[in-house]
Amino acid sequence: MRETEGHKLATGLEQHVTTYDVDVMNMQRAEALIPGELIEVKLAGGGILKARSVIVATGARWREINVPGEREYRNRGVAYCPHCDGPLFKGKRVAVIGGGNSGVEAAIDLAGLVSHVTLIEFDAQLRADAVLEARLRSLPNVTIITGAQTTEVTGDGERVNGLIYKDRQSGALHTVELAGVFVQIGLVPNTDWLKGTVKLTPRGEVEVDARGQTSVPGVFAAGDCTVVPYKQIVIAVGEGAKASLSAFDHLIRSPISAAA
Amino acid sequence: MRETEGHKLATGLEQHVTTYDVDVMNMQRAEALIPGELIEVKLAGGGILKARSVIVATGARWREINVPGEREYRNRGVAYCPHCDGPLFKGKRVAVIGGGNSGVEAAIDLAGLVSHVTLIEFDAQLRADAVLEARLRSLPNVTIITGAQTTEVTGDGERVNGLIYKDRQSGALHTVELAGVFVQIGLVPNTDWLKGTVKLTPRGEVEVDARGQTSVPGVFAAGDCTVVPYKQIVIAVGEGAKASLSAFDHLIRSPISAAA
Repeated sequence: MRETEGHKLATGLEQHVTTYDVDVMNMQRAEALIPGELIEVKLAGGGILKARSVIVATGARWREINVPGEREYRNRGVAYCPHCDGPLFKGKRVAVIGGGNSGVEAAIDLAGLVSHVTLIEFDAQLRADAVLEARLRSLPNVTIITGAQTTEVTGDGERVNGLIYKDRQSGALHTVELAGVFVQIGLVPNTDWLKGTVKLTPRGEVEVDARGQTSVPGVFAAGDCTVVPYKQIVIAVGEGAKASLSAFDHLIRSPISAAA
Repeated sequence: MRETEGHKLATGLEQHVTTYDVDVMNMQRAEALIPGELIEVKLAGGGILKARSVIVATGARWREINVPGEREYRNRGVAYCPHCDGPLFKGKRVAVIGGGNSGVEAAIDLAGLVSHVTLIEFDAQLRADAVLEARLRSLPNVTIITGAQTTEVTGDGERVNGLIYKDRQSGALHTVELAGVFVQIGLVPNTDWLKGTVKLTPRGEVEVDARGQTSVPGVFAAGDCTVVPYKQIVIAVGEGAKASLSAFDHLIRSPISAAA
């Protein structure tokens, strides 16, 4: 059996990169991108990088519910990716927080793996496509709770053992015993620094074509910061390869380069 | 340093898959796909597989020049992927066969790595974009030979040591001494069996959207058999993940499944 984990994969890639003539600048935050024949990237530390081609791969972060227990029990019962972490909860009780398409899909997916799923939605009703909601309601081991605000993830100091939600109509607090909480209230792309220069969707995702080209010539983007469907490591890795090859194509076709 | 090779990666994936409840049928050739609520795949051995969702990942093969020496010295000097195998020829003399965009791009790419590149084109002139051709002609370590038919790849029994081409006008045979031959005359997608059922491009590539969906509901495709730009293993792996997640989406939204 061969397996890897996100952290191991990233470390392996970093080690591999050092065998090539590639400069890696860690601990830098990009603050602005200025298009031009030489594209400039302003760093928070005050520095400016200039390049004929730039690949944006700043990723996205899970939107958090921001309640006590969420950060403490992250990866100890609090999870964000049902495809990745679902199998860890085989035979156990879990909750999914969020009743949009991703929450409902997660609940359907998890219901096939775990013993029971409680889906908790803040609004008075689910916000998923009707066909998904119908599918969810047909499952015997799912409880749907709407109009509910999660106020705390509880644990025994080691791992999650439940959550507390408030009935938004009555104000009453309720406890659910479970081993896992999947937070499915969206992803936030790390693209604030690109606003006004690179074309973004209303959700802030970088718009790219099939080759990773953005709206700015010479600027490519890959992975979870883009419109690519499905936010998964292996998909982001493939998109990164596309964007790199596109950047290469751009460089060998650019007039500066041909004159050099 | 962490590295892998195509064969090792494939073996690792195969071992990993066996840890799940997945049936793998090796040594089968698909002959036809019949759309429907249950999609049928006819196998050459006479069997028929039925499924609510199918992912086509039949890949592509390099178009070969079909001359003596090409197969004998494959991976011993004869190569098809400049991005993958270029670094193996650092400081050596190589040839690129093919003067279309991929051949000219390969020659530009290799010229930065190897000591000298001979580009050999069958037609009387190159068939690449003007900007690429100009770039190629600006490089000091590239020789371009047009109107030339490669007739043999030669070797010392161990590795490639040259090639022979025929001047198509004079008929004279010429020998070029070199360590590597990159064949860049195109890729042939393995999609003959889909003709008439799944929408293909004129070059035979399966048309897919950003989610890997083909023209037939429930049929997805990924990798080198599709229109995906850049045929690379890591890209194909990411596209496979997209197609799998799309197939999953399709299954949980399908009426049969909801009724089940």
